[in-house]
Amino acid sequence: MTTIQRLDAKLEEHIEKVEHYKQVQTLLAWDARTGAPRKGASYAARAKATLAGELFKIQTDADFGLRLEDAAQQEDLDELSKRIIAEHWKTYKRRSAIPIEEYQAFVQQQGLANAAWLEARAANDFSIFAPHLKQIFDASLKFAGYWGYEQHAYDPLVQQFDPDLDKVTLDRIFSELKSALIPLIRRVTSSAKQPDTSIFTHPFPLEQQRQLGIELLQAIRYDFDAGQFGATVHPFSSAINPYDARLAAKFVENDVRVSLWSALHEGGHSLYTQNIDPNLIHTGLGIFTSYGIHESQSIFFEKFIGRHKGFWENNYFILQKIKPETFGHVSLDDFYFALNAVKPTFNRFEADELTYNLHLIIRYELEQAIIAGEVDYEGLPEAWNDKYEEYLGIRPPTHLEGILQDGHWSAGFGLFPSYTLGFVYAAQIHKVIRRELPDYDHLIESDHIETITGWLTTHIHQFGKSRSADELIKSITGKSIDTAPLIRYLTDKYEQLYEL
Amino acid sequence: MTTIQRLDAKLEEHIEKVEHYKQVQTLLAWDARTGAPRKGASYAARAKATLAGELFKIQTDADFGLRLEDAAQQEDLDELSKRIIAEHWKTYKRRSAIPIEEYQAFVQQQGLANAAWLEARAANDFSIFAPHLKQIFDASLKFAGYWGYEQHAYDPLVQQFDPDLDKVTLDRIFSELKSALIPLIRRVTSSAKQPDTSIFTHPFPLEQQRQLGIELLQAIRYDFDAGQFGATVHPFSSAINPYDARLAAKFVENDVRVSLWSALHEGGHSLYTQNIDPNLIHTGLGIFTSYGIHESQSIFFEKFIGRHKGFWENNYFILQKIKPETFGHVSLDDFYFALNAVKPTFNRFEADELTYNLHLIIRYELEQAIIAGEVDYEGLPEAWNDKYEEYLGIRPPTHLEGILQDGHWSAGFGLFPSYTLGFVYAAQIHKVIRRELPDYDHLIESDHIETITGWLTTHIHQFGKSRSADELIKSITGKSIDTAPLIRYLTDKYEQLYEL
Repeated sequence: MTTIQRLDAKLEEHIEKVEHYKQVQTLLAWDARTGAPRKGASYAARAKATLAGELFKIQTDADFGLRLEDAAQQEDLDELSKRIIAEHWKTYKRRSAIPIEEYQAFVQQQGLANAAWLEARAANDFSIFAPHLKQIFDASLKFAGYWGYEQHAYDPLVQQFDPDLDKVTLDRIFSELKSALIPLIRRVTSSAKQPDTSIFTHPFPLEQQRQLGIELLQAIRYDFDAGQFGATVHPFSSAINPYDARLAAKFVENDVRVSLWSALHEGGHSLYTQNIDPNLIHTGLGIFTSYGIHESQSIFFEKFIGRHKGFWENNYFILQKIKPETFGHVSLDDFYFALNAVKPTFNRFEADELTYNLHLIIRYELEQAIIAGEVDYEGLPEAWNDKYEEYLGIRPPTHLEGILQDGHWSAGFGLFPSYTLGFVYAAQIHKVIRRELPDYDHLIESDHIETITGWLTTHIHQFGKSRSADELIKSITGKSIDTAPLIRYLTDKYEQLYEL
Repeated sequence: MTTIQRLDAKLEEHIEKVEHYKQVQTLLAWDARTGAPRKGASYAARAKATLAGELFKIQTDADFGLRLEDAAQQEDLDELSKRIIAEHWKTYKRRSAIPIEEYQAFVQQQGLANAAWLEARAANDFSIFAPHLKQIFDASLKFAGYWGYEQHAYDPLVQQFDPDLDKVTLDRIFSELKSALIPLIRRVTSSAKQPDTSIFTHPFPLEQQRQLGIELLQAIRYDFDAGQFGATVHPFSSAINPYDARLAAKFVENDVRVSLWSALHEGGHSLYTQNIDPNLIHTGLGIFTSYGIHESQSIFFEKFIGRHKGFWENNYFILQKIKPETFGHVSLDDFYFALNAVKPTFNRFEADELTYNLHLIIRYELEQAIIAGEVDYEGLPEAWNDKYEEYLGIRPPTHLEGILQDGHWSAGFGLFPSYTLGFVYAAQIHKVIRRELPDYDHLIESDHIETITGWLTTHIHQFGKSRSADELIKSITGKSIDTAPLIRYLTDKYEQLYEL
């Protein structure tokens, strides 16, 4: 447990107030995406916007700024207090750089852009969304200008989510992955040995899928007394604080994989939050340190635990118990092969381990093409389709399966890289953890996941935002972000599985 | 639909902000009582307290006060705008009368008192709760002093919930009810004809009770797109706004009546909220006008609709369909008699129509005895038991079934009368509606509840807080609150049912 030096009482009170507003905002977002009624949505959004405006004022309060500056100059400040001050000072400066009217207008534009995206999807007509996308991207770039940057306008945008990353690093990471993955996918998909995945698309009643989700969450030791398991249309987790880390899965009757993966993925996010040192709760540091590291933990549980054969040696009985008519006569080997089937599709969310990163790389490259003026909004749908054809060998037949698939762009630039960063980090961590816990496979097979989670807590979770992504990954692996472990992991696994 | 004159833009903005905070608070309370995890409760309470403090400051903002005063003096103000100004001015004055430190301390004491009440219940030991109760009641009386009163300290306390009521009126109402009900209950309970209520205590799976609740809510035309149906330990409804009126029922496996009544009761509250003119949403008047009127609508749907034989002629099939093994061979007459069984118990929440008001009268009389110094905190449990014995002929064997039954007192004085006021108002309204809709019984039998709800919307719901309780009841019945219709209704119904 961390002990925190006392800061100036008024400063502590102000920081706690910021925290409370943020926790309430997270809860409002949770509610909007789980139980909130359809007809109340626009009113709820207005109330949420009011709170966002109030928080903006609190975070950019001039007196608060002065106190932060004073505190930063205190010489006897301990390391953790310095981090607390630095974190709030960073937010203070970022927020203060944007005129409040522009900030509020942007928040409103985001809401309208998301509504336009939904409308465009309903009509399968990209032209409804295009002007909003342009407006959002233009505003994003204007904000990048306010914040300033040395090399690329994209840098401050991606740094909203991953402070230690920049375009140069991302270009390198994505290029390395692309070179390795595209040929590997071609080899895998042309292998003679292919799994039978039809077991997953048998109708699976939603109430039973919920039961499956609960048992899988129990298997990874999710604490139900410090969270909640809900249902939604796009799975997510809500990091309110370590004692309230909720998750919502998506349930689709004809594909049990959707809820299965979303329970493990969001469960991984929530375990991270539940294991943060509670002493950090009211400091601003009691939260995941970056989107990439947050994603590394969800991916660790979804892919490195949830696609580990030992995990299913231990938990396949749950599926066989809940749905004997489907799984009763399917061997663990067949089930495991089906679970790890590789098949290029148009859908990022339901992608397998191998094709997953290419979905993200395509989105990232299109963002860069827009910023560089290499593609205009009219040409964007075709550019999207061309890349799918080039990298995955398939061409979306409609915009619904193409450019209109994800709604993330209605919030701005720069969110997609975190998904791939998370996978890269997770593989780096996985490599070290296997070395440091030599009985790693046996721990999973023998239902001792808590030892692995304990290791992750010691090296990552507990610190929350008090250590940066780069500090964490360096202290664990001795180096910065590195694609080699992920490429090695995927190559070895799929060469063996598909007998290449 | 109401058209609202434009007020000063800054005033409108401030009023809207107040509304948004209140809506968020209602949502936080909903969350705390439905899905929120146990371990996060104390942190959620702290965040909630921060927002309450912020709202206090917003409501007592000096500049806001000046704008309200200015607006109140505008001569060309329409009636509705006057109401809006008056409502916020009243809150401004009430809040400003209390020093903010005392208000915050009181909010904290309420939380501690509630925790002590739970602890006292667990230990069946009133002495754990007693000092908290004294502290809460002392603070309530101090606040009454700040607010000022002409006759009784109780007046400003009950007026927090029912602005048109005072102690003198309550004394009269409760005395009239007591004189009529105590002898009626004695006659009913000593009747030779008694119903068989064992059908209700057969095990009834919770998921099926949930289905029953949904179908009953559909029967009274609750709009699920403007609300949510949740589960909790003490049923309640959350009036966020007309487009978000949620309710939570309690589910007990061995007594289906608990969820049945709570769905209809909280459904009645929520219908009221859903039918408020949406133009009132951001004015401060888009909410129930008083606790008594709010309760009159829940009681109307729970008792006057839900205990109407015609309602069950139409809806008994739901129970027979969901649970044929229990209800399949029970006639509608037997079911209806069992549903209206009268039996004195210690439990207010599960009381029948006849004994219900006596539970409230006992609580009210004890509040008066405390204020008058006729009973001290040590003597309170015995005073409670004596009253149960005197009025209902039963004596609680433990404090758990006695003085520790309700937690409401940990919030302060004056909340209990509303429950009885609601019943009295509902009977007055019921008398008029039967006269104005001569085919009333047939409307219920033939599943045309919407005509009745339409009448209630026209005469009550739509106005929200833009008309006072007394104005509403006078415009409907031609007189103020009056116990005669309730006494008549109960006497006629139960004399017939029990063949007295």
